[in-house]
Amino acid sequence: MRWLSKLKREDKKRLDNLYKKLKSYDENSVGFPINRLFDYSELYKFLEFSINNVGDPFEESIYKVATHEIEREVIKEFEELFNANQDKCWGYVTNGGSESNTFAMYVGREVMGKDCVLFYSKDSHYSIQKSARIESFSKEVVDVDEYGEIDYDDFKLKLTKHKDKPAVVVLNIGTTVTGASDSPEKIKKILSEVGVTRHFIHCDCAFHGMIFPFVDGAPKFDFSCGIDSLCFSGHKIIGSPIPCSIVLTYKKYKQKIESSVEYVGLVDSTIAGSRNAFTPLIIWYALKTVGLKGYKKIVNDSITLADYAIEEFKKVGINAWRNKASMIVIFDKPSQKTIEKWQLSPKGNITHLITLTHLSKKMIKEIVYDVAKDLNRS
Amino acid sequence: MRWLSKLKREDKKRLDNLYKKLKSYDENSVGFPINRLFDYSELYKFLEFSINNVGDPFEESIYKVATHEIEREVIKEFEELFNANQDKCWGYVTNGGSESNTFAMYVGREVMGKDCVLFYSKDSHYSIQKSARIESFSKEVVDVDEYGEIDYDDFKLKLTKHKDKPAVVVLNIGTTVTGASDSPEKIKKILSEVGVTRHFIHCDCAFHGMIFPFVDGAPKFDFSCGIDSLCFSGHKIIGSPIPCSIVLTYKKYKQKIESSVEYVGLVDSTIAGSRNAFTPLIIWYALKTVGLKGYKKIVNDSITLADYAIEEFKKVGINAWRNKASMIVIFDKPSQKTIEKWQLSPKGNITHLITLTHLSKKMIKEIVYDVAKDLNRS
Repeated sequence: MRWLSKLKREDKKRLDNLYKKLKSYDENSVGFPINRLFDYSELYKFLEFSINNVGDPFEESIYKVATHEIEREVIKEFEELFNANQDKCWGYVTNGGSESNTFAMYVGREVMGKDCVLFYSKDSHYSIQKSARIESFSKEVVDVDEYGEIDYDDFKLKLTKHKDKPAVVVLNIGTTVTGASDSPEKIKKILSEVGVTRHFIHCDCAFHGMIFPFVDGAPKFDFSCGIDSLCFSGHKIIGSPIPCSIVLTYKKYKQKIESSVEYVGLVDSTIAGSRNAFTPLIIWYALKTVGLKGYKKIVNDSITLADYAIEEFKKVGINAWRNKASMIVIFDKPSQKTIEKWQLSPKGNITHLITLTHLSKKMIKEIVYDVAKDLNRS
Repeated sequence: MRWLSKLKREDKKRLDNLYKKLKSYDENSVGFPINRLFDYSELYKFLEFSINNVGDPFEESIYKVATHEIEREVIKEFEELFNANQDKCWGYVTNGGSESNTFAMYVGREVMGKDCVLFYSKDSHYSIQKSARIESFSKEVVDVDEYGEIDYDDFKLKLTKHKDKPAVVVLNIGTTVTGASDSPEKIKKILSEVGVTRHFIHCDCAFHGMIFPFVDGAPKFDFSCGIDSLCFSGHKIIGSPIPCSIVLTYKKYKQKIESSVEYVGLVDSTIAGSRNAFTPLIIWYALKTVGLKGYKKIVNDSITLADYAIEEFKKVGINAWRNKASMIVIFDKPSQKTIEKWQLSPKGNITHLITLTHLSKKMIKEIVYDVAKDLNRS
C-alpha cells in the first residue's frame, strides 16, 4: 500500500469532526426506516481490494476479485423466505430500492411489450414515478384510501380504460409514509374481471418486505400469490452502512434483457455494470449473525414499541395510529424545529415516527413531549 | 452495537478463505483498469453509521447522516480539472459508469426532446447500448476505424439520415478495449456541416478521464470543447474498493429532470434515490493524499511501463501497440488459460494488458513469456 502522502492534520481534524457530527445525528434519527444496530467491522478487511461483482451473480466473469458466491447464497436464502421457486427464480443485490424498481419495471416492460400501461398508486415511492419517466411508460396513477392503500375501484376504472393492453402493476407492500399495503389478491381478481390476461405484477416491499414475513396476520404478498417480481431494502430492517436492496424475479424474465459482454467474459443482466461486492457480504453477515429468527424478534419488539408510542400520544390527546403489522406511527405534523430535531419525515399534514428497536421508551416520551408542546399550543 | 449471536467458527473460516482467495486473485489481475494501490482504513469508522447521501448533493435533506459536504468538495475539484464553470455546472457521485451514462443520456433525451436520435460507436461500453434500450432511444450505431476511434464519415452519413432531428451523441474518451478517443471537435464540425443545431454531447471518459488531463499532447475533451456532460470512474485510476463514478453536467440540464420529495425534504435529481455516502469519502481521501499531482505521476509512470511492455513483446516477435496517451497495451489473444491466469480482457482476436503501476517489470516479463509461448506455438 503506497501513499504519496499522509492526510494533513487539518484534513484529519475535518474527518474527526464529521464523524462526531454523524454520530450525534445518527442517535436522534427516528423518522427513517433504518435499523442502526449493526457492527460489520469483521468485514472491513475486504475493502483492501477492488472487489467488484460485475455481471450476473449466477454466471462466471473473468474478473475474479468478486463475492458472487456470497451473493448467490444471500439470494437463495431470500428466495426461500419469499416462496420463490429456486430453479425458476433469480435475483441480485442492487444499489438500492430505486435500482431494484427500475430493474423490475424494465423487465416488466420488456416481457409485456412496448404498448403496455403502467399502474401504481399515488402513495408509491418517488422512484416509481422517476423510473416510469426514464423508461418512457404510458401510465395511470391510481388513488389511495385514507390509510394509503390503493383504491381498488379507481384501479378497476383506470384499468378498464386500457383493457386491450398488457398491464405492468406496481404494488406497495407497505407505503413509505403510512406503511399501507396493496393486496396482490384483490389486484389479480380485478385484472381477471376486466379481462386483462397479460400482466406483470411487481411488489415494492422496500421496508415491509422484511417485516410482514415475521408478523402473524400480516398482509400476504410473496411469490405464492402469483406476483412476478419483488424487492426489499438491505439498509432498512437488516441494517447496512451502504444503501442496498435485493430484487427477485423469474429467470425467464431476466433472460429477456440479458446480453453477453465478451471483454469481461460476463452475462450482463443487471442495471449496474460494475457492482458493489461489499453489500452482499454485509447481508450475508447479518443473516449469519442476527438471522431470520433475530429479525423476527426485532420486528415484533418494534411493533410492540409502536403500540407503546401510540398509547403515549393518546395520553396527551394526540391521535396517533398505525397500519396492520407496521411499526410506522403516524400523527399530525409538529413544528419544523421538532421535525428537524428528530429527523421526522413529513407529508402534507402528517408525519411519522418509526419505532425500530434502537429507540428507547425514554426517547419516545421525549418525542411525544416535543410534539405535544407544538400541537397543543395551537 | 447489539448482535444476537457471533459469527460461527465455520462462517469465520469461510470469510478467511474468501479473503485469501481474493488476495491471490487481486495480485494477478492485469487486464482491468483498476489501480489497486490504496489504503482507506482511516475511513472505516464511518461504516458504523447508516450513512446515506439521498438526494441532490447541493441541496439539503432531512436525513442528516450524510456526507453531502464532502461530495460537494469532490465535485468542485473535478469541475475545475475539467474546465467546468462552477456557477453553471453540477454533478454527483454515482454507483458506477453505467449509472453515470444512464443519467447523462436521460438528461440528454429530456433536454433534446423525445424525437431525438442517439449516436454512439460500436466500441462504446456495453452500458450505452443497455441505457439506450432502457430509455427507449431511437439510435444509430456508428462504425470505428482499426484503432477503435469513431468513423467520422460513417457518423456524417448516419447523422445526415436524421438531420431534421435533435442528436444525442455519446463519445468515447478512451474505449474500453483499445483506449481510442473520439474527437468532440471533429464531431461538432460534422454536426455543423450537416446542419444539426440541436445536439447534446456526452463524453464517456470512464478510464481515460483521469489519464488525459495529466499527459502532454493527449486528446482534448473537457467542457471547454463545448460538451454537455462527462463522466469518469472512481474505482479505476483513483482506486476504490467499491465501484463509483462522477458525472458532471450543466445545472440547467439537471433541473429538467429534478422533482422535490416532501417526506425526505429533498430534491431528487439523481438516478439512485438513497445513495452511497462512503464513496465520496474515498474519493475525497484520495484527492487529499495522492492528489492530482500524485495521479499525474502514477499515470505517466504507467504509460512508461506500457512502452516497456510493448518493447518486451516486440523482442519476442509479438506485435503489441497502444493508442496515444493510453496505458492499454493491445496484442493478439493468447490461450484461454493465459487469459484466466492474468484476468486478461479479450475481444475478437485481440486482448489487452493495462500497465497500472501496481504491475512490476517482472510481472510484465512473465506475461510476455506466457503469451509468447501460446502465440509462437501455432
